[in-house]
Amino acid sequence: MNFKSDNTAPAAPEVLAALARVNDGAAGNYGDDNVTDRLKTKLSALFEKEVAVFPVATGTAANALSLATLTPPHGAIFCHEGAHIHVDECGAPEFYSQGAKLVPLEGAHGKLTPEAIKAALAHHQRGVVHHAQPSTISLTQATELGTVYKPGEIEALARFARHEQLTLHMDGARFANAIAHLKCSPAEATWKAGVDALSMGFTKNGAMAAEAVIFFNPAHATDIAYRRKRAGHLFSKMRYLSTQIEAMLDGGLWLKLAGHANAMATRLAEGLRSVKNVALEHPVEANELFVRLPSIAAMQTLEAAGAKFYEWEPPAEGRPLIRLVCSFSTTPSEIDAFLAAARKVG
Amino acid sequence: MNFKSDNTAPAAPEVLAALARVNDGAAGNYGDDNVTDRLKTKLSALFEKEVAVFPVATGTAANALSLATLTPPHGAIFCHEGAHIHVDECGAPEFYSQGAKLVPLEGAHGKLTPEAIKAALAHHQRGVVHHAQPSTISLTQATELGTVYKPGEIEALARFARHEQLTLHMDGARFANAIAHLKCSPAEATWKAGVDALSMGFTKNGAMAAEAVIFFNPAHATDIAYRRKRAGHLFSKMRYLSTQIEAMLDGGLWLKLAGHANAMATRLAEGLRSVKNVALEHPVEANELFVRLPSIAAMQTLEAAGAKFYEWEPPAEGRPLIRLVCSFSTTPSEIDAFLAAARKVG
Amino acid sequence: MNFKSDNTAPAAPEVLAALARVNDGAAGNYGDDNVTDRLKTKLSALFEKEVAVFPVATGTAANALSLATLTPPHGAIFCHEGAHIHVDECGAPEFYSQGAKLVPLEGAHGKLTPEAIKAALAHHQRGVVHHAQPSTISLTQATELGTVYKPGEIEALARFARHEQLTLHMDGARFANAIAHLKCSPAEATWKAGVDALSMGFTKNGAMAAEAVIFFNPAHATDIAYRRKRAGHLFSKMRYLSTQIEAMLDGGLWLKLAGHANAMATRLAEGLRSVKNVALEHPVEANELFVRLPSIAAMQTLEAAGAKFYEWEPPAEGRPLIRLVCSFSTTPSEIDAFLAAARKVG
Amino acid sequence: MNFKSDNTAPAAPEVLAALARVNDGAAGNYGDDNVTDRLKTKLSALFEKEVAVFPVATGTAANALSLATLTPPHGAIFCHEGAHIHVDECGAPEFYSQGAKLVPLEGAHGKLTPEAIKAALAHHQRGVVHHAQPSTISLTQATELGTVYKPGEIEALARFARHEQLTLHMDGARFANAIAHLKCSPAEATWKAGVDALSMGFTKNGAMAAEAVIFFNPAHATDIAYRRKRAGHLFSKMRYLSTQIEAMLDGGLWLKLAGHANAMATRLAEGLRSVKNVALEHPVEANELFVRLPSIAAMQTLEAAGAKFYEWEPPAEGRPLIRLVCSFSTTPSEIDAFLAAARKVG
Repeated sequence: MNFKSDNTAPAAPEVLAALARVNDGAAGNYGDDNVTDRLKTKLSALFEKEVAVFPVATGTAANALSLATLTPPHGAIFCHEGAHIHVDECGAPEFYSQGAKLVPLEGAHGKLTPEAIKAALAHHQRGVVHHAQPSTISLTQATELGTVYKPGEIEALARFARHEQLTLHMDGARFANAIAHLKCSPAEATWKAGVDALSMGFTKNGAMAAEAVIFFNPAHATDIAYRRKRAGHLFSKMRYLSTQIEAMLDGGLWLKLAGHANAMATRLAEGLRSVKNVALEHPVEANELFVRLPSIAAMQTLEAAGAKFYEWEPPAEGRPLIRLVCSFSTTPSEIDAFLAAARKVG
Repeated sequence: MNFKSDNTAPAAPEVLAALARVNDGAAGNYGDDNVTDRLKTKLSALFEKEVAVFPVATGTAANALSLATLTPPHGAIFCHEGAHIHVDECGAPEFYSQGAKLVPLEGAHGKLTPEAIKAALAHHQRGVVHHAQPSTISLTQATELGTVYKPGEIEALARFARHEQLTLHMDGARFANAIAHLKCSPAEATWKAGVDALSMGFTKNGAMAAEAVIFFNPAHATDIAYRRKRAGHLFSKMRYLSTQIEAMLDGGLWLKLAGHANAMATRLAEGLRSVKNVALEHPVEANELFVRLPSIAAMQTLEAAGAKFYEWEPPAEGRPLIRLVCSFSTTPSEIDAFLAAARKVG
Repeated sequence: MNFKSDNTAPAAPEVLAALARVNDGAAGNYGDDNVTDRLKTKLSALFEKEVAVFPVATGTAANALSLATLTPPHGAIFCHEGAHIHVDECGAPEFYSQGAKLVPLEGAHGKLTPEAIKAALAHHQRGVVHHAQPSTISLTQATELGTVYKPGEIEALARFARHEQLTLHMDGARFANAIAHLKCSPAEATWKAGVDALSMGFTKNGAMAAEAVIFFNPAHATDIAYRRKRAGHLFSKMRYLSTQIEAMLDGGLWLKLAGHANAMATRLAEGLRSVKNVALEHPVEANELFVRLPSIAAMQTLEAAGAKFYEWEPPAEGRPLIRLVCSFSTTPSEIDAFLAAARKVG
Repeated sequence: MNFKSDNTAPAAPEVLAALARVNDGAAGNYGDDNVTDRLKTKLSALFEKEVAVFPVATGTAANALSLATLTPPHGAIFCHEGAHIHVDECGAPEFYSQGAKLVPLEGAHGKLTPEAIKAALAHHQRGVVHHAQPSTISLTQATELGTVYKPGEIEALARFARHEQLTLHMDGARFANAIAHLKCSPAEATWKAGVDALSMGFTKNGAMAAEAVIFFNPAHATDIAYRRKRAGHLFSKMRYLSTQIEAMLDGGLWLKLAGHANAMATRLAEGLRSVKNVALEHPVEANELFVRLPSIAAMQTLEAAGAKFYEWEPPAEGRPLIRLVCSFSTTPSEIDAFLAAARKVG
């Protein structure tokens, strides 16, 4: 019953098998190997477009590198106030970009809106040297609150971005969960909707440590190779990074695993809806639930029953809000055990 | 016959086995796991001292993080002119340290000397605000030229460092090869000799992607955890990073593998000494050889025979200098095949 | 009738006279001169404590240098959402600090409160590597909205800061206006109340271009000299910078000039209170007024009458908010002319 | 007899007079004033080309801002090993550029050559991500050793720069002394020869604190305004900065003052040539002399006679090397007094 995070999960067996498979003799270093070559082809096929691909090991690296590539030091990055890049990366985007400013914005259920960004632009006037210059929008898909932007919502943000000459970045740490929910093509949810760069996450979804920075516009990819190297994120034995991603792509494993995690979250949400005095704060569209419990005692009872989770915020009127995350390795029996415990506190 | 680099080698089977072993159920994220806990204990035992340990995935990350921790933005880092941190990390130490200055110094066979640093201090006067302030010495062990500092040489540098209030960093990308050569304890070659921080490499020696930043003085380790996070080098599924290092330590595997690589280099060196018109430029003390060939044609013949290596410098008087690196996976028959090819060109 | 900013004003004649006076023969460079020596003595006397003094030419430099000195790259700086450091310095604190995070907070009339900071600390947990670490509070005295913190309010912030192990910085671009209002000693309004560092402004108050970074705790001043130099803010002919500040201090000129500016603002405020349909949004305690006009047409009429000012925000319900700033050079007749024009639109 | 530096000199009376002249009533802030407007026109006329002009207060700011504009974080800047940007700015170019690498090169009499840069390019291979990427050449005119590049020498460097896709920056802290020596047009010595950006110094030559960053190619000037602001180098009362430069330009004052400084240096050099056991180490082409004295005792005798100067290097074989700098305010009688003292020690 570990619902703490999808990164407490292990790696998928297919990923381990792929590592063993490529562990065979010498190979070119720093990405000059067959696996990395294939990866670019496979990701281009997946996105129905030639994309520029830069594998790295962590989501923070993927986000910071892509944002620093898109944003000048004097730029402003508009994001949701709960965005991982703003609250959970200890200032990585600021470090990589030499001090660009993240502008945290409110938005229901973790989603950015053109209206919120438009209001913020009043304090970031273009051409006024006193202001950090509007540069980039970063949205998180699926959001930090377990919701998913619809392609139309992304298109609206992208339209606004183009109108204001901003670039559009997507933090896709849980991109797979979003696509598994939307059941649209990866292209439709990204470049066709107007996304310029994607941090495509695999670690939470079953890799050991592997993410890909993807640029849909090659003009954006001219200097990230140098940034990656000088940040210490270019692996010498790159094949072991690339093969994790390849294993996730092959046979659609990434969508299968994310679909399972989503299904577990749905099962959990459906079960909780019938529990008294327990409320879901946000629509459950991916693999995360935010659950308002009746009391601190209720939370402690769940913990005593063996459930692991984060307390998301300080309790409001004595009622804690907890986050439950399902992963590819969550089992129906874990869900049912949690529900059984929850029914006792409801 | 791939002598291009020890990082073209695969990972040791023991490392793969360890990955499979820890791939079992949920575990604490970001280092809050048993493997990472054990690692600290095991490394402290190895170094006969409680050490602060920060696993990362690349040598450049290990170097840049430890140097930025030891060096203020206005500091100067003294290193050999051929040091990896200076010529092969695309400015990583400068990036991480917010622009500290690397001062490249000459030194025979890749080694720094107190005399060379002393001469450089004339241009880095302490307390003169115009000058980057003397802060850190970084030596590479084994050196970039395949030689190994003796403990006495390190002590001399450390004595000088203490006298000048400098800290002493060791880039140990090939630390294992150095220890395997010196046959002294890791403690004698580091903190007992006066080293403050070590980038302890495992990747080149048989891991997939794993290095450890080690601080021998806990006072130096107060902020690196934040630096590592904001650089994107904190792994969420840390167990997969830590277990690689643990596998290398268990049963002394790291020294066994490095000893093999060194032995292969020695076998190659001994063979080459009897080849006419071929010369070794530096003592062969670790796993690298720098070989002066008689002609460009000779180099091409070796390549045609299937040998892979780096041409280290432009040819001098028509004679190329090539680098040959042996790894844990180099076989005696590869050595012998190279020697056979070399005898034809000598 | 130029109420646009106090930095549209010229320099005080005493400042020009001082420049002419020191323009006599050779002098030591980079601060090794008599004027700069005297300045330290005079500021220590003014603050009743030995202070560390670093003259620079701009307020942004003073703020960015002092904040970067107090805040590590992974630190968080808590400030009012309208703080100059956050909205008007194009990311200078982020640049100088290598990407520390400014946390903008709400507060009535431009003032920070311990409560607002306390709430923000929930997202900046100490020791949690994912979060920018709580480090510094920066308050603006006088505030951006023309109000003045009372010593008791500063003490409350300082008490909170000490409790949370934060340092306390004061952006004193209009420190003189605050002291002229409070009529307390500079010591009472700063270190006696718990302030660690002060950006003490002189430019807006009558210098050409001169500010002083003041550290009340010498332990904070160990590396700012290097930071200043490498930022290009160490003047070679320093006497011309120092003499401006000395001229402002001599005979209490700084308080005389600020007192005049404040008096002009008070005169303007009193006059406006009797104008119909015109409202002051904030208490007028220093030299700035924020005036809600009845209509856009009214604003245009004032402009047509020759008044210069900033429109502070987009109009609310058709009513613009303008900012009027008085300076040492504002004359009673300018005030009266503005009032006459205002009465016509009220 | 202060020959320590041209920045120990006062400001020219014309500069003080200009400050007094503009000190009249309100003016637009942050460069929105008549003086700054005129400055752009006058500098464009001087250079026979529309140039982009950014006044700042220090040479270090001018250099660091222009270099950071021309050089990406992963770039390499090739400069003479004695260049001010490398040895006397405490890492300012590294700070501003987010860690670009300065590559110090040897060259007779303080001059860079295409050959020296070409050799260095071997370690900075274009497109190799491990290497800081070749980006910028920075030459100092007049050099740090008192010599002056001829237009042909600059053209050769510029031709090489274009061939290697490098930009060419000129640190012109003593540009006036160079032009006064060359007697060519400023255009011939800069953009017509291939220079992209110039740090045009006025402080050492008679201003209080004023330099101009000049871009000859407007495409290079797109973001420096933001960089200047966030570095704290945009003056609010800009007229006082701009008027210093205007005063230097008007009536060719800058060349008159530099011509005088050069003439004083020539007079000193000619006098010293007849002194026994005293040698000039470099051609005296601008306003600096580097004099090899017969003994440390001789140096002490000169100091006892009231001469002020820098000892440039540690003595060689007991013979000190001193630097003597003449300024616009050096008088013939100072020269003669020094020569009289020198004859006693020769």
